[in-house]
Amino acid sequence: MLRECYILERDAIRQFSDKPITTNFMAVACPATNLFAWGREVDIVSNDHYLWAADPRNYVTLALAADLTRSVAGGKPWMLLEHSTSGVNWQPRNVAKQPGEELRNAMSHVGRGADAIMFFQWRASRSGAEKFHSAMVPHAGTSSRVWREVVELGGILKDLDEVRGSRTQADVALLWDQESLWAQGLEWRPSEDLQAGERIQTFYDRLWRDGVTVDLAHPSQDLSRYKLVVAPASYLLTRESAANLTAYVEGGGTLLVSCFSGVVDENDRVHEGGFLAPLRAALGVQVEEFLPLREGETLSVSGLGDAGPVTGSIWAEALVLDGADVVGIYADGPAPGEAAVTRHTHGTGTGWYLSTVLDADQLAPLMQRVYADADVTPSGLPEDVEVIQRVGTDASGAEVEFTVAINHTIEPVAMPVAGGSADLLSGEAVAETVEVAAGGVRVLRRTR
Amino acid sequence: MLRECYILERDAIRQFSDKPITTNFMAVACPATNLFAWGREVDIVSNDHYLWAADPRNYVTLALAADLTRSVAGGKPWMLLEHSTSGVNWQPRNVAKQPGEELRNAMSHVGRGADAIMFFQWRASRSGAEKFHSAMVPHAGTSSRVWREVVELGGILKDLDEVRGSRTQADVALLWDQESLWAQGLEWRPSEDLQAGERIQTFYDRLWRDGVTVDLAHPSQDLSRYKLVVAPASYLLTRESAANLTAYVEGGGTLLVSCFSGVVDENDRVHEGGFLAPLRAALGVQVEEFLPLREGETLSVSGLGDAGPVTGSIWAEALVLDGADVVGIYADGPAPGEAAVTRHTHGTGTGWYLSTVLDADQLAPLMQRVYADADVTPSGLPEDVEVIQRVGTDASGAEVEFTVAINHTIEPVAMPVAGGSADLLSGEAVAETVEVAAGGVRVLRRTR
Amino acid sequence: MLRECYILERDAIRQFSDKPITTNFMAVACPATNLFAWGREVDIVSNDHYLWAADPRNYVTLALAADLTRSVAGGKPWMLLEHSTSGVNWQPRNVAKQPGEELRNAMSHVGRGADAIMFFQWRASRSGAEKFHSAMVPHAGTSSRVWREVVELGGILKDLDEVRGSRTQADVALLWDQESLWAQGLEWRPSEDLQAGERIQTFYDRLWRDGVTVDLAHPSQDLSRYKLVVAPASYLLTRESAANLTAYVEGGGTLLVSCFSGVVDENDRVHEGGFLAPLRAALGVQVEEFLPLREGETLSVSGLGDAGPVTGSIWAEALVLDGADVVGIYADGPAPGEAAVTRHTHGTGTGWYLSTVLDADQLAPLMQRVYADADVTPSGLPEDVEVIQRVGTDASGAEVEFTVAINHTIEPVAMPVAGGSADLLSGEAVAETVEVAAGGVRVLRRTR
Repeated sequence: MLRECYILERDAIRQFSDKPITTNFMAVACPATNLFAWGREVDIVSNDHYLWAADPRNYVTLALAADLTRSVAGGKPWMLLEHSTSGVNWQPRNVAKQPGEELRNAMSHVGRGADAIMFFQWRASRSGAEKFHSAMVPHAGTSSRVWREVVELGGILKDLDEVRGSRTQADVALLWDQESLWAQGLEWRPSEDLQAGERIQTFYDRLWRDGVTVDLAHPSQDLSRYKLVVAPASYLLTRESAANLTAYVEGGGTLLVSCFSGVVDENDRVHEGGFLAPLRAALGVQVEEFLPLREGETLSVSGLGDAGPVTGSIWAEALVLDGADVVGIYADGPAPGEAAVTRHTHGTGTGWYLSTVLDADQLAPLMQRVYADADVTPSGLPEDVEVIQRVGTDASGAEVEFTVAINHTIEPVAMPVAGGSADLLSGEAVAETVEVAAGGVRVLRRTR
Repeated sequence: MLRECYILERDAIRQFSDKPITTNFMAVACPATNLFAWGREVDIVSNDHYLWAADPRNYVTLALAADLTRSVAGGKPWMLLEHSTSGVNWQPRNVAKQPGEELRNAMSHVGRGADAIMFFQWRASRSGAEKFHSAMVPHAGTSSRVWREVVELGGILKDLDEVRGSRTQADVALLWDQESLWAQGLEWRPSEDLQAGERIQTFYDRLWRDGVTVDLAHPSQDLSRYKLVVAPASYLLTRESAANLTAYVEGGGTLLVSCFSGVVDENDRVHEGGFLAPLRAALGVQVEEFLPLREGETLSVSGLGDAGPVTGSIWAEALVLDGADVVGIYADGPAPGEAAVTRHTHGTGTGWYLSTVLDADQLAPLMQRVYADADVTPSGLPEDVEVIQRVGTDASGAEVEFTVAINHTIEPVAMPVAGGSADLLSGEAVAETVEVAAGGVRVLRRTR
Repeated sequence: MLRECYILERDAIRQFSDKPITTNFMAVACPATNLFAWGREVDIVSNDHYLWAADPRNYVTLALAADLTRSVAGGKPWMLLEHSTSGVNWQPRNVAKQPGEELRNAMSHVGRGADAIMFFQWRASRSGAEKFHSAMVPHAGTSSRVWREVVELGGILKDLDEVRGSRTQADVALLWDQESLWAQGLEWRPSEDLQAGERIQTFYDRLWRDGVTVDLAHPSQDLSRYKLVVAPASYLLTRESAANLTAYVEGGGTLLVSCFSGVVDENDRVHEGGFLAPLRAALGVQVEEFLPLREGETLSVSGLGDAGPVTGSIWAEALVLDGADVVGIYADGPAPGEAAVTRHTHGTGTGWYLSTVLDADQLAPLMQRVYADADVTPSGLPEDVEVIQRVGTDASGAEVEFTVAINHTIEPVAMPVAGGSADLLSGEAVAETVEVAAGGVRVLRRTR
């Protein structure tokens, strides 16, 4: 029996439209569905994905939605059941896709595990609520850019037949627990500015910019195959999941936990022993009191890197050390001179704790140190050049590696490639570096 | 039987109060009434007019309301049934009228065709919801500025008895179709920032500042007597109205059409052939795709005048030329290097098309070129000096011209006048130029 | 029978949360209760007070709430039934108290008449809506800053046993009439920007900063014991209360009335004779017309002091003098060159009238002149150093004066003290000046 799992519903997005940047993401995150639980029950996982037009970097949330879909599918290939050739009709401003943007979008879905790329809709209707929604055949007919790009994409997908069935590779897990998102979304929290969805999206953005592909993972699952586990928002964390994370560190893993985590159990009850108590062994630090900032206030954290202090906002905490080393110190704010970021050795692994809110830029120096502990290597490419790898086996059983490179910038970029690679679209062999054109896409194939 | 047509209801204004500038205007535009259709059924057309206090240049929307009232009355004189001596009580901030402002307001209504000037209300009530609404007799009684100005106005209106029955002159028609306003106001449009009412008001403002008096006209009516027809927002345009406009151009008229026009028919169904298809012959251009901008984004259009590029916002379109000349080019934005403004010769007339949103300032160079095509001459007076003409016949059957000049600035202005003019208030003959005092009013009479 | 009067309900605050600064204050002011009327019916008056965290100077509204509670109690000691050790859980951002802040808060309540200082809540609950509300015993337990400060406060309160029963001294009355607040809050007022609560809070803030302790008073009560009566917002003012104020001035008092006062009677009916008519004798001025400003507009008033014009906003009035002297003149705005502030001698007293809206900074020069007329002496201490006096009798019947000094700044401050003073906490005698530490508190005792 075929059962489908629609992850993203466009109606669901509408209710978050007052917070544009996080909206698309939250729509993925917040339907009244525990996606990981549901994913285990269905045969085919699919997604409907529509860009949030207000966000000029909406290809990052697209990537997050695709990674989440793949993770819900347990890493298996999935279907992109719907996306659009250009603008939609239900957002405040329905920005049309630029030339080449539709191809870049489609290929990011492919790189992140989609084995089917489909559109809503075939032909734009002349009447009704969706008449201004883009289509494969727009009102202007087949003598249009949109139609020409649809035809081009069809040809490219045909050339990628060999990619089907291969699996996207990720060394890093980003924790995602629907029940924690629900719990943190309840009323009467210390600060309405601290949003779990925003935290997950921001850590994801930092990892995306560094060219680090991630799986979304539940804190209770086996994490041992990951080099690094990042917990941006684990407000609700059961004793069992905390023990799982502690064992992961003890066994040599690197764990980074962000503020307002480990606060309550599965009944939204504060953990006995106080905030963060279940992660005390892994992190070597406790939280005495939450110190939310006023609206718009910022603070400085020194000690994280050579480029000077980083700027935090929204939140701070009064930490009590229990074995951890202080890496970042509050230079001002509600706890001046106190610990802001700590690092703890537990077993053969490392537990990091960050007690304030850093945006994607300000996270960079901390993440460099965490990557070093975890032996994770950023791609080294310019910030808006996306690279993903899928690995499968060819007819002979040999391991084959597909590299999808997408250049979201307006400059061509030279990308180093492993020896023996070939361009899957042209069929030609490539040298040590390939150029990815401005706004362009490359798919390379290499037998490992 | 006397039947009245109230155009503007102050309660109707309240529902638009979150968009201050367009509110007053929209109140005129948006009651659930097709004004032109209703106007044909009544004997006397009247208006209740109240300034939108938040707008420091609210005399422009006053003029638009008056021109609309006259146009609904088919050009015949009409009655100003209600206006106020000073502030009202139902706006967020009920700004009092400055000395002389009430006279300027009243005389703009007169110049634009009102033959009766009345107030709400005689005496301010001590109790109830309207106790802070201004009145002819305010709470301060008859020893007040308001009362003295009411008495002064009464004397002036008596001196203008001869103006009654004359008709306001306009060479330009601005299209106004209630059904198109309703249709564009429905949900699921490409951009909520593109507002039909705002577009009509902005084009009106540009014409007002240039001293060009306009009638509001329905796209289906006979337009042959106008030198220029401007269509700021004709989203819904029937095939019949499009044919009417096309015939107008063919017969020598100048037509200027603004973006997102000619999109749907009377059933809100996209025209066969695509956007703008029914005006293809008149304009020589088609629209392949709408390209809405993100919130706050702007773009540049070059080629419209010597003063450099103009700045557009909200909207652009991918145009496909079909005979028209490119006059303005997108210098950036979503379609860089492509046509933004076109000009087409059809029959003995000219069809202009503007595919982006320009504000009243940025419209100036385009309108200068359009005026030149249409042989329309701006007044040449400073921007906030308003001049309107009414033409009637005297007892001997001779044509008499009344010029109403209103100086909304704080500097006196010299205005050239035709020979043989007399000041209707003082009765004295005037020379080649008259001075209109700062904040003052003049009414001149001349037998043609 | 013991009946309690809760003045401030935290749920009531929630409905004003879109106007953060005035919220806390309005919550005190606006429940559907005439506090003065209710206060006469109960045996014990108490308050629940919670800081409005968004306001960095929330100790001023704390002081106002405490002064109002005492005034409702008729000057008798009262109970602080609830306040918090640190942050609460029901505001958008629940800022934790800084070290020492809880002591400063408690001592301001004591100085302003509280004889009991209590907390909500004993121990933080692990579950439920209030689990993030601070408590005497927080989740972190007794090894926490919060607990240590609670214990310290308990010791200090024990040392202040002698203060119980003494009464806070105030020479100035600030008028507060719940019925006028309700009436001004109705719809259809000249400007929604003019808010009675904001006006009272701003005048209070000015007096607080000048170190002048005030009682809140009803306009109908005996005011003869006050050197100065300030009426920031007496929109509804009965003939009887106006006569009471007039008699107060006639008998030698100094009265300062702010704009939009004396407008309606107890039936929300404009006074016969026009705005401000019932205070004509006391103030020597009438209001011909209200002149509200547009949103964000400002105006200048000259003549109030040597430091140049002050800046007003929101409101102006067209005044007609009837004996008063012009002290402040509108330099611009809707009535340039006309009277803005007047001063009138009536009987042996003085009546001031201010016809625009000045913020707490801009009020300073006017208040200096009013203080001089009223023989009121500001404390002369830095702006955020709070000093209050309570006076009682000792066992021998001698008059004893308790001075509570609270330093809200981050610098130590030297405060002059009367001879014979002793530090009530240390028990030691003090010299001519005492130092109040940065963020610190002092309580002095002196037998008069």
